Amino acid sequence: MTTHSSRTRNPNLDDDPAFALHRGGKLQVTSTVDVHDHHGLSLAYTPGVARVCDAIAETPELVETYTWRNNLVAVVTDGTAVLGLGDIGPEASLPVMEGKSLLFKQFANVDSVPIALACTGVDEIVETVVRMAPSFGGINLEDISAPRCFEIEKKLRERLDIPVFHDDQHGTAIVTTAALYNAARLSGRDLGDLRAVVSGAGAAGVAVTKMLIDAGIGDIAVADSKGMIYDGREGLTPIKQELAGVSNKAGLRGSIEGALAGADVFIGLSAGEVPESAVASMADGAIIFAMANPNPEIHPEIAHKYASVVATGRSDFPNQINNVLAFPGLFRGTFDCGATDITENMKQAAARALADLVGDELAADYVIPSSFDERVAPAVAAAVAEQARKDGVARS
Amino acid sequence: MTTHSSRTRNPNLDDDPAFALHRGGKLQVTSTVDVHDHHGLSLAYTPGVARVCDAIAETPELVETYTWRNNLVAVVTDGTAVLGLGDIGPEASLPVMEGKSLLFKQFANVDSVPIALACTGVDEIVETVVRMAPSFGGINLEDISAPRCFEIEKKLRERLDIPVFHDDQHGTAIVTTAALYNAARLSGRDLGDLRAVVSGAGAAGVAVTKMLIDAGIGDIAVADSKGMIYDGREGLTPIKQELAGVSNKAGLRGSIEGALAGADVFIGLSAGEVPESAVASMADGAIIFAMANPNPEIHPEIAHKYASVVATGRSDFPNQINNVLAFPGLFRGTFDCGATDITENMKQAAARALADLVGDELAADYVIPSSFDERVAPAVAAAVAEQARKDGVARS
Repeated sequence: MTTHSSRTRNPNLDDDPAFALHRGGKLQVTSTVDVHDHHGLSLAYTPGVARVCDAIAETPELVETYTWRNNLVAVVTDGTAVLGLGDIGPEASLPVMEGKSLLFKQFANVDSVPIALACTGVDEIVETVVRMAPSFGGINLEDISAPRCFEIEKKLRERLDIPVFHDDQHGTAIVTTAALYNAARLSGRDLGDLRAVVSGAGAAGVAVTKMLIDAGIGDIAVADSKGMIYDGREGLTPIKQELAGVSNKAGLRGSIEGALAGADVFIGLSAGEVPESAVASMADGAIIFAMANPNPEIHPEIAHKYASVVATGRSDFPNQINNVLAFPGLFRGTFDCGATDITENMKQAAARALADLVGDELAADYVIPSSFDERVAPAVAAAVAEQARKDGVARS
Repeated sequence: MTTHSSRTRNPNLDDDPAFALHRGGKLQVTSTVDVHDHHGLSLAYTPGVARVCDAIAETPELVETYTWRNNLVAVVTDGTAVLGLGDIGPEASLPVMEGKSLLFKQFANVDSVPIALACTGVDEIVETVVRMAPSFGGINLEDISAPRCFEIEKKLRERLDIPVFHDDQHGTAIVTTAALYNAARLSGRDLGDLRAVVSGAGAAGVAVTKMLIDAGIGDIAVADSKGMIYDGREGLTPIKQELAGVSNKAGLRGSIEGALAGADVFIGLSAGEVPESAVASMADGAIIFAMANPNPEIHPEIAHKYASVVATGRSDFPNQINNVLAFPGLFRGTFDCGATDITENMKQAAARALADLVGDELAADYVIPSSFDERVAPAVAAAVAEQARKDGVARS
């Protein structure tokens, strides 16, 4: 008996430490109770377990107390939009999903299980998740391509009474909003003083834009590959039409380069590059979040020539906008209070809590806490649970 | 931040040690790798993980090597036939499924995740499991009521290239066959010398009967609530019709009590009681496996008055027929050799390996190893993997 697969080793691949680390996978399911004799077995399994099952059958809410469900997230993907790799399919997405689970556990003691699906239709995915939902306390959607991701999340939130959260949208939005609060504060401004331009109308671009509008940003306009999105542009998808209706009050048209002239904020959430000349045309004290990974839309060293604050998605530059600052604490908070939903207010509370942790240490190279700051998940969890209670979605 | 749910305690329920043990559930998902800094994160997550994803996208079989999939079982139920409790629904079944996962890990280092489904239709369950299958290396069906369980297993085996195993059928069949090998050997007989009567035509009754026929039992007949099942009985379901065609060579009709007259073996797999007079009418040297739980079809003390060997499903009597003797080692063996299916031969090999462990210590009160015998899972795993290679279903 081997402890894991005894597959033939591939020495070439394992020369890469990332492969060596991934051998056998990154997760395991262990027991939280010890069962070493017939007595233990008679409590954890038959016949004792039958009394617990009976009690849950009679009083359904006891499932939250006497199973692991209220600490368990399904990390659901279809493998269609994995990192920058695109549609690589469910099997190839598993290392990312295992990584997500690892982060959930390490940062907030949230248990989670990768569920990579062999289907991509909206209704297929929704039905599948609804059917498996009795086993889980929350659903984290991951790396599902736009625009399906919007509809899948919307339908699942309607059908389920457990939190459903698409991290590529809202995790990114929460951390971006937190960083922007602090970047504005650094120069004595608040969000209402800022005009922002977003590059990318995918999952993250849409969610960041909506969240910043909710947070009171002065104006924000989004560019896709065809240029600025405005009300009246022909051929808009329903999602982009909705975006056009709530964003771009100034009615900017044409290229993103033109829209950046005089703008206070650039938020890059696409793989598209932005020329130095466009960045140079931004307003004084510009804020640049160039979050494409691994290649930011504009290199941070160039961005610094024109901007007061620069943030990226990379760990080797200051101000890393990393979703791990949000999703672990967010689910920790929802579980701690038994929240049945994640409201807009809860996301805003998470962003505020994240921003507030920076406190008096605020500086151009420190507008957002480090991913390894141990205060982050507890602070986010507490803020989220408090807001859930205010919003009436907490069961405890 | 709390480590688990901070729900209100219920002191009355927790006076029962089974409830106290179940508080917060029995499982957790932990990482097998340490990630404590940006370097570790850059290997286990972005950007390093992308290289592993890319490699799997290019060479799909690498998913077995670089994810946890090849050690991971989905414990799938719809909650319709849970222990002796019946159709209690998916949520209330979770404590049993968590117990199953606990046993998988403890006895054979197999990781598993409870998936309790909110649907009961055959095709719904099959589709749901097929869609989630990319995430798992094997499927353990559990506590799904007959006759749907037969069709679900059959369809899933056809559609998936990972092992699918309904434990209530085949786990019980393997352990029962092993015990019967040894009970026969104790009196110098082999299975071909025995005529058996089975009480119960549910999942276990059907599978035990088929497996004992495959193993060469002399004759075996099954009773359901209407009496003996024979070819030509009116109103038989397709499954029972199939059973009638391969069992009951003697053509027994009428009540189980009549069929037991002169029989060598009684195998109880139902909640129905059997009167002492019927047991008294069995042949000399009778073998009685009364496995209903918690109340055996006939009390072991009474059975002992007439039988040479008595086994039950209970841990407080000798010769406990317990599925935990089979399923952990069986999946360990399938994973160790990368088996794409669990063949009839592999089940027979598991039963032989289990029987052989008793060896020279064979006695009337020791026809099957103890559940906590640490030799069991490795022996079953080795036999299963060896047979899988002979049967051509092993990938390594």
